[in-house]
Amino acid sequence: MSIPAPPVPVFPPAPYTLTSVTGLSAAGVKAGIKASGNPDVALLVADAPMACAGLFTQNHFAAAPVLLSRKHLAASGGLVRAVVVNSGNANACTGTQGEADALEMCTRVATALKCPVEQVLVCSTGVIGVKLPMDKVRAGIDAALTQRSSDVEAGRRFLSAIMTTDAFPKEAGARHGEATMAGVCKGAGMIQPDMATMLAFVATDVDVSVDAMRAAMRRIASTSFNAVHVDTHTSTNDTFLLLSTRRVPAPADWEQQLEPVARRLAWLIARDGEGATKVTTIRVSGASSDAVARDIAAHVAASGLVRTALFGNDPNWGRFVSQVGNVKGLAAPQRLVCRLQGIEVFRAGEPTPFDRAAASKAMKAEDVSLELLLDEGVGHALLMTSDLSYRYVEVNAEYTT
Amino acid sequence: MSIPAPPVPVFPPAPYTLTSVTGLSAAGVKAGIKASGNPDVALLVADAPMACAGLFTQNHFAAAPVLLSRKHLAASGGLVRAVVVNSGNANACTGTQGEADALEMCTRVATALKCPVEQVLVCSTGVIGVKLPMDKVRAGIDAALTQRSSDVEAGRRFLSAIMTTDAFPKEAGARHGEATMAGVCKGAGMIQPDMATMLAFVATDVDVSVDAMRAAMRRIASTSFNAVHVDTHTSTNDTFLLLSTRRVPAPADWEQQLEPVARRLAWLIARDGEGATKVTTIRVSGASSDAVARDIAAHVAASGLVRTALFGNDPNWGRFVSQVGNVKGLAAPQRLVCRLQGIEVFRAGEPTPFDRAAASKAMKAEDVSLELLLDEGVGHALLMTSDLSYRYVEVNAEYTT
Repeated sequence: MSIPAPPVPVFPPAPYTLTSVTGLSAAGVKAGIKASGNPDVALLVADAPMACAGLFTQNHFAAAPVLLSRKHLAASGGLVRAVVVNSGNANACTGTQGEADALEMCTRVATALKCPVEQVLVCSTGVIGVKLPMDKVRAGIDAALTQRSSDVEAGRRFLSAIMTTDAFPKEAGARHGEATMAGVCKGAGMIQPDMATMLAFVATDVDVSVDAMRAAMRRIASTSFNAVHVDTHTSTNDTFLLLSTRRVPAPADWEQQLEPVARRLAWLIARDGEGATKVTTIRVSGASSDAVARDIAAHVAASGLVRTALFGNDPNWGRFVSQVGNVKGLAAPQRLVCRLQGIEVFRAGEPTPFDRAAASKAMKAEDVSLELLLDEGVGHALLMTSDLSYRYVEVNAEYTT
Repeated sequence: MSIPAPPVPVFPPAPYTLTSVTGLSAAGVKAGIKASGNPDVALLVADAPMACAGLFTQNHFAAAPVLLSRKHLAASGGLVRAVVVNSGNANACTGTQGEADALEMCTRVATALKCPVEQVLVCSTGVIGVKLPMDKVRAGIDAALTQRSSDVEAGRRFLSAIMTTDAFPKEAGARHGEATMAGVCKGAGMIQPDMATMLAFVATDVDVSVDAMRAAMRRIASTSFNAVHVDTHTSTNDTFLLLSTRRVPAPADWEQQLEPVARRLAWLIARDGEGATKVTTIRVSGASSDAVARDIAAHVAASGLVRTALFGNDPNWGRFVSQVGNVKGLAAPQRLVCRLQGIEVFRAGEPTPFDRAAASKAMKAEDVSLELLLDEGVGHALLMTSDLSYRYVEVNAEYTT
């Protein structure tokens, strides 16, 4: 059958992109890896080694580029000159040939930049189980090295060249005094491991240490890329790199300035979930710990019943509440309060009388809020999830491997 | 939109139903709880106390009848004279009034049968958050007490009166020498907590102790009702009762005779998953423990990507394998072998070359087999899951609470 695709949302371009950050140049070229002929090799280069923290998929079948980038980051002590990316092919489940290919991509860039190979990271995204067409990749890298530039258009070409099934480009940025924070990402809901899945690059020019970057990255991820929950289905290639060219003095609140950029990017990924019509932000508070709060949010976000109710604008408190009830180890579930778009729908073990038509109308929004308030402690969590629509089934049932 | 419902599968009636078991009588009557006018009060009575083991939902919002039945089973030492059931209303999230109503249902039956109230169990299924219409329930119980009979038709009426959204009745039975094993259940994939969800009653006449019954119940559930996995969404009312009238000598292999009856009933529930077109049995072997094997099977069964691929007859090895890769603590994931309908699709970290068209054709079956073979130990698990179709989204998005 054929389900009409939902309208593609239009977001204004961000005021800043990766190349807005002092010290960065970028490129995006058409290497012919994608059958579509769209750009598929991207390169990000810093004038001098950047401080970098990376978050990588924990999947046991992590792709060759993930394993290599992890190794390089450790060997270089978190110093990175360049990141090379290809789309259209994830170089995952490709055996020892895949490992050799990932290394060759780094070596080619390192040789041109005259830097140690461990200062080059590599990311791949696209189909899995297929070897990279290395002739095309090599030519693409060479072209990207030649064409790289620090203008805004080059930053946008980088973004184009990392996209796969994305319905729209995803970028975000802000400037605070001298400091610039900007990022781009690709991904459609973290829900398509056969087109392995999420890559995010967030950069700044504030002068912070690698250690500070690593600590900030964990916290920032917890409310952004680690807070996008569609299934437990993290893919073989998921990568988030936080980078700094360290050119301007770091303001005291640099981390608070970076976090919204990352969170916006993550929201855009959820918004682009296959067939998604909205993003629902689930906020859990009053849990006995942050971990329990996160478990509750994840249970709710993982439920097909919850996500179809969100799609159908159905204020179906029973589905939300019963999923909370499935989380182990709650001390006082009978004190749960549930609010949907600010409307209380459940309290003290029974539904709160509410206007269903008004609640359903309130759910017809791009941004939906679901609050779950417990009374067991100060643990809280935030997760963003897309809804589950006919279109999701179509995209995923009729995708031919 | 309107998705054509898949054809309702037709299964031949089982040769035996609950009343085929020596010592049991049953009834099913129309009490008017359901707006449809369908039967909605059911009663099962034994001539003398039965040995009973019960498995109940672990949901924190367990309904009043669940809490009361648990209490009665403990107080009676596992001896049960009768089970009273209503459908159309789950008596869940109904506060103290709900507790009083559940107790009154038991008391009414106990008074008529002149047995201790704790020898009567109660189950409810249907909408949640709405108080029971007790006038109708009382009249229904009285009618059921009057009409109960040990003929086959009475057993079938019991089954009719426990159904809610079921597309077809679910019963199974077998006879081994003098011993009869028979059961009925209701439920559509355990995936609809707002119509809370699964009730199963499996009875035999073999003479076993309550303790033996309890031990057997846990094992039998692990390959039947606890092996139906659609989400983590267990509902407020899920109940499985294993009962014995203890009239005939127990053969040595009585548990092995009971298990297939329970497993068939569980399979029928998965088959009736909303919009389901097939049941996929996931078998994990070679895991480091049964618990890890179960975790792997649950990860795979929980994935929307896996379940849409099953619906689309897509031999999408990447989706199955990457979900295994998300399970924590695997020692040797690189030795994973994956087989779909007996066709090897993945081995040693790379896809096995296979005929995709043939594999897709093989997946167009009522029963699909997905095998995940590890090489880390002797842990194994079995889970049955339904597929995720357009119809699932329709049923769940357009269901109006």
